[in-house]
Amino acid sequence: VALTALQLFSLARAGDVAALGRLLSRIESGADDLRVTLAEIYRSGGRAHIVGITGVPGSGKSSLVSRLVQAARAGSAKVAVLAIDPSSSLSGGALLGDRTRMSDLDAHVFIRSMATRGATGGLASAALGAVDALDACGYELVFIETVGVGQDEIEIAGACHTTVVVSAPGLGDQVQSLKAGLLEIADVHVVSKCDRPDGAHTLSDLTALMALRDRRGAWRAPVIATSAQTGQGIEELLRALREHRAVQRSSELGPLRERRIAEYRAWKSAEELLRQRLAAARNEALAELVDRMARREMDPLAAAESLLALCARKGA
Amino acid sequence: VALTALQLFSLARAGDVAALGRLLSRIESGADDLRVTLAEIYRSGGRAHIVGITGVPGSGKSSLVSRLVQAARAGSAKVAVLAIDPSSSLSGGALLGDRTRMSDLDAHVFIRSMATRGATGGLASAALGAVDALDACGYELVFIETVGVGQDEIEIAGACHTTVVVSAPGLGDQVQSLKAGLLEIADVHVVSKCDRPDGAHTLSDLTALMALRDRRGAWRAPVIATSAQTGQGIEELLRALREHRAVQRSSELGPLRERRIAEYRAWKSAEELLRQRLAAARNEALAELVDRMARREMDPLAAAESLLALCARKGA
Repeated sequence: VALTALQLFSLARAGDVAALGRLLSRIESGADDLRVTLAEIYRSGGRAHIVGITGVPGSGKSSLVSRLVQAARAGSAKVAVLAIDPSSSLSGGALLGDRTRMSDLDAHVFIRSMATRGATGGLASAALGAVDALDACGYELVFIETVGVGQDEIEIAGACHTTVVVSAPGLGDQVQSLKAGLLEIADVHVVSKCDRPDGAHTLSDLTALMALRDRRGAWRAPVIATSAQTGQGIEELLRALREHRAVQRSSELGPLRERRIAEYRAWKSAEELLRQRLAAARNEALAELVDRMARREMDPLAAAESLLALCARKGA
Repeated sequence: VALTALQLFSLARAGDVAALGRLLSRIESGADDLRVTLAEIYRSGGRAHIVGITGVPGSGKSSLVSRLVQAARAGSAKVAVLAIDPSSSLSGGALLGDRTRMSDLDAHVFIRSMATRGATGGLASAALGAVDALDACGYELVFIETVGVGQDEIEIAGACHTTVVVSAPGLGDQVQSLKAGLLEIADVHVVSKCDRPDGAHTLSDLTALMALRDRRGAWRAPVIATSAQTGQGIEELLRALREHRAVQRSSELGPLRERRIAEYRAWKSAEELLRQRLAAARNEALAELVDRMARREMDPLAAAESLLALCARKGA
């Protein structure tokens, strides 16, 4: 007998990791019976520290996250990683590589990749819904790793409590992140691969650039030099993540960020909902509107108003 | 005294070209008082032959269109050109270059560039609204020229009665258009710059590629070799455009295309309308929804449903 999403969620909350995996698959594919479950998941969450990790391809995000997971586990936190890579729906399995072994060896580490946009086309909602589920299931630290390319991916990384932007030597230095609009969203900067001889150069460039920027209220984004090879800077980065969360909790920054994330999610969900409803309306009322437009009895904006009114009435 | 958009439209229909220019500026900037005028414009249109011309940058679209305008004028049609180039809001003036001189010398040629996305962010609706105005003002042949890069630009070119895709030698041959998703939307293929020695190669590649494709009902997209330098193929292209329209008028292709265009426009307008209304809702109801979400009393999808219901009720 197939379990409902709500049943899977109950099992997952009780510690059934296989059920959690199946729940995330349903969220990813946009299954039909999710509405109530997603609402329940969202209401049950709100305790995890959600950390977005982004950076241009090749900046070493995956190795960095693996190191962070190890360090956080040494501090005995329950840790989850959601790696978003919509470009690699074919090579999706390979992305995780040796990281899946990490979760095989440790019941308190959950690692998952999301490689498709889901049935409904809503990558951001699916990804953040999956993070909600990890949060509700008691993971205290949830990393969401996205390639910093594409509007959705950048937005997802920004819709977290703490956003880490990773730069690496040998990629045209910080200019690449700057161009991609990533620097703006960083709460913490990381220069990865600092074991390389050109690491110092990237580090000083980025530090100089950040020195020009204004402090954001009670927090100024630090620039942290790391190396996944040697382990340099990993503990410092983990401390910075926790410090950022502590500053948020004790200042106006926390509520501000919560509201910004909530606003983004409401907005994104509304866009996706409209797209779904418009798609459903195609075969029905749209045909009549289109006929009237073709006869020039109705103009495009009037047709659009009718469509929106129709979509608002459609019950979920 | 400033004229209303409706007054400008009345003047433009009576042949006042300066009024037409001002009307298009208002449409481009998404002025507030346009709602009634756009509906009136749309209802008054439906007679022009709208021809979309697209192709990758450097394919010679502008020179081709200039030649086409000259040839159409020799046949005494009233001709308009709308050149869309959102990337060049700075160099917008330069784009038209010597083409504006053409309209200076001939009252039955109207040439205009649209270089911005407009205040409402709706490039497609603004561009197609401008085309409606040209149609309603009696221009019999309206060219809308877009760079075949970016979803909006490709869609605009496809939302016409006849879509011309321009390929040129020396740009990686037809593969570039193929990659950009342009070949699918072509009713007529043009290989431009055929005075160049490598023109024959591009032409035979494209012809071979098209021979593999299915005929679309009563019409098979021809491949026409042109040269803006020598004038080669321009008359043939103009005949192909008229033949395509004649085939549409005497077959199921015409009504099918009208409906496809109407559907696209209703859809696009609905998306833009929602975006506007969501933006307007930001300061009002959104704040309350966001508060409830931050308190976990409401989940993102429930907030989205409230937003959509709110946006549907909002009177225009």
